[in-house]
Amino acid sequence: MISVEEARTRILAPLVPVGTETVALGEAWGRVLAREVVARLDNPPADVSAMDGYAVRSADTRAGTALRLIGSAPAGHPFGGEVGRGECVRIFTGAVVPNGADSILIQEDATREGEAVIASCEAPTGRHIRRRGQDFDRASVLLAPGRRLGARDIGVAAAANHPFLTVRRRPRIALLATGDEIALPGEPIGPGGIVSSNSLMLAALIRAAGGEPVLLPLATDDNDAIGATARAAAGMDMLLTIGGASVGEHDLVRTALAAEGLTLDFWKIAMRPGKPLMHGRLGSGQPVLGLPGNPVSAMVCSVLFLLPALARLSGTGDEGPTPVEAVLEEGVGANDHRADHLRARLSVGRDGTLLVRAFPRQDSAMLRRLAEAEALILRPPGAAALPAGATVQILRLDGYGL
Amino acid sequence: MISVEEARTRILAPLVPVGTETVALGEAWGRVLAREVVARLDNPPADVSAMDGYAVRSADTRAGTALRLIGSAPAGHPFGGEVGRGECVRIFTGAVVPNGADSILIQEDATREGEAVIASCEAPTGRHIRRRGQDFDRASVLLAPGRRLGARDIGVAAAANHPFLTVRRRPRIALLATGDEIALPGEPIGPGGIVSSNSLMLAALIRAAGGEPVLLPLATDDNDAIGATARAAAGMDMLLTIGGASVGEHDLVRTALAAEGLTLDFWKIAMRPGKPLMHGRLGSGQPVLGLPGNPVSAMVCSVLFLLPALARLSGTGDEGPTPVEAVLEEGVGANDHRADHLRARLSVGRDGTLLVRAFPRQDSAMLRRLAEAEALILRPPGAAALPAGATVQILRLDGYGL
Repeated sequence: MISVEEARTRILAPLVPVGTETVALGEAWGRVLAREVVARLDNPPADVSAMDGYAVRSADTRAGTALRLIGSAPAGHPFGGEVGRGECVRIFTGAVVPNGADSILIQEDATREGEAVIASCEAPTGRHIRRRGQDFDRASVLLAPGRRLGARDIGVAAAANHPFLTVRRRPRIALLATGDEIALPGEPIGPGGIVSSNSLMLAALIRAAGGEPVLLPLATDDNDAIGATARAAAGMDMLLTIGGASVGEHDLVRTALAAEGLTLDFWKIAMRPGKPLMHGRLGSGQPVLGLPGNPVSAMVCSVLFLLPALARLSGTGDEGPTPVEAVLEEGVGANDHRADHLRARLSVGRDGTLLVRAFPRQDSAMLRRLAEAEALILRPPGAAALPAGATVQILRLDGYGL
Repeated sequence: MISVEEARTRILAPLVPVGTETVALGEAWGRVLAREVVARLDNPPADVSAMDGYAVRSADTRAGTALRLIGSAPAGHPFGGEVGRGECVRIFTGAVVPNGADSILIQEDATREGEAVIASCEAPTGRHIRRRGQDFDRASVLLAPGRRLGARDIGVAAAANHPFLTVRRRPRIALLATGDEIALPGEPIGPGGIVSSNSLMLAALIRAAGGEPVLLPLATDDNDAIGATARAAAGMDMLLTIGGASVGEHDLVRTALAAEGLTLDFWKIAMRPGKPLMHGRLGSGQPVLGLPGNPVSAMVCSVLFLLPALARLSGTGDEGPTPVEAVLEEGVGANDHRADHLRARLSVGRDGTLLVRAFPRQDSAMLRRLAEAEALILRPPGAAALPAGATVQILRLDGYGL
């Protein structure tokens, strides 16, 4: 049995970012940028007014001065002439400052009298003018590859005049759930059968992490059936098997995949829940991750190993959920030789401290309880018992669409 | 001018959750549940083994006892007979415990000798058996309406045998950007024109919040054009206008919408950036939110008002981003009468404290800077200057796909 850290290192090592594709900017939200976004223009493209008012020559303005109104400059309709001595031009927010003008007299500081505008105070040079390129200059690098694009990034790319972006395609993850006993929801359930919760749960997790799940048909506990289904996953970025990775006679995935050229890397991790995690690659080079069939174990393993793998395949700089600190509301017992991941609730103390409390019962068959958990308390192998008030490392589960 | 809080209250007051639709479970991730999920079966559906081993009668087991192997119970293939005195049945994880057996002797504690199984220790009653309904009982309510479904919820609904769920449909938000000066990225830009960043940025924000953006064609600064475009938004859950909500002569949205029966609620808020925020409803009852044309102002207003509105329309219990506390890394000046929202970076201090530092320049024309911000520092009207080390309220921008 290897450690969680070593397992993660070995799972991530062979993974490289998937290829790229071009998407319309309107479809790029949430995608991972693959090519830097370079400004195609200055923003603003010219000196523009930041306010509604009058474009003036600062030297002409003093309280009581009357300026001659010679035209108007709404946004999108620049004034073609020049503002001479004693003249002004009506201007609106976002409009180009006309030649000759060097300041904006805001309308609150001006009185209009026919074709004259009376300033009630001085308009200092440069006041209320947004300089060309103040936000960014043409050719500046605005967004770097590896960034998962948020709404504001879409705004920046739009302002930089990019109708399309180059992003990583979504990593395609094939899901192969095995077992004579499982059926998808609503399908006939045989004697001793159960409804498969893993396939759809993990497909959702893959979507949450920006991947594209490909649900292979459920495979019965049969070498040929498993092999044939696995071959259908050729060309996907990873084959994820569910169940059958343990030691029982009916755990056929390893044998079935051996016929597909499986090179096994490891198949047991010193962790709980989730000991029987398998890793390897097929003859084609396709990475294989074999999750335990128990849904709680499968989910915890996915948080620890699949999310980082998806991050690596997606080309983001990060590597999935990062531990943060929290304070125990209640003590926890000593741990054995397997890294433990206690399902827990979070709260915030009066002084703003993040508090965490493990559920009293940690049975790995309790999916409902896992769904209620807001965090996993990380308990390293051999960790001593800890009293209430001790600081522990946790993985938050409440912010990833999990 | 009204306060931010009053504006939010008035925007939210008339909003009710949108209607519902049925989606396949595989498509329900990220959607808001509209009808509770009730378990359609017990989980597990019967007493099942938690381990690979032998189903036994506890009373028969003692170190050295030989048990007669009478059959096998793989998962999905229940053993039809009964385990009598001195007998055992080979069993695998997840398989139904046969009648007569009351304990599982795990395979590590047993030696097989032909048709005999020798126990190396006692197997206490109930050991390694997952009781029927241990996770949940048929008819228990597993997921409540209003929940935004994460991957684990999908797993729970699958385990409860639901192939479909009833969710809120995505709130449809029509986006109407106005201005003679704006063009979408890659389209011809006229003299004094700029590329519109708001439409696509806000469409992305609406998606991030689970809504469905409907991008109306850009409208020129013309009453009829704006009115005709707005009429195309009939039936949407909200009309979002962008630009033209200020006081200038060329801010036509209010006048144009007056012809559509606009009842104005308010159109100025004591805040920065974003003073000219308009709210009202059309003759049809359709809510209208008018965002400022400045992208930084539009985005900040969207975080403060549009996200809560989308949460309300989506039927989630929450109301959008919630302020949290952070400690100033650098002092901030006194504030005037308008609530301010300083763009800022976050970091974590050595003791785990969340630290925040405002960008030195807060110009509302700097979209690039807004995209780099990780938080908004909330500065109430009339707030005194604060030194480094003071605690402030912030809105985090780093966790909403913003």
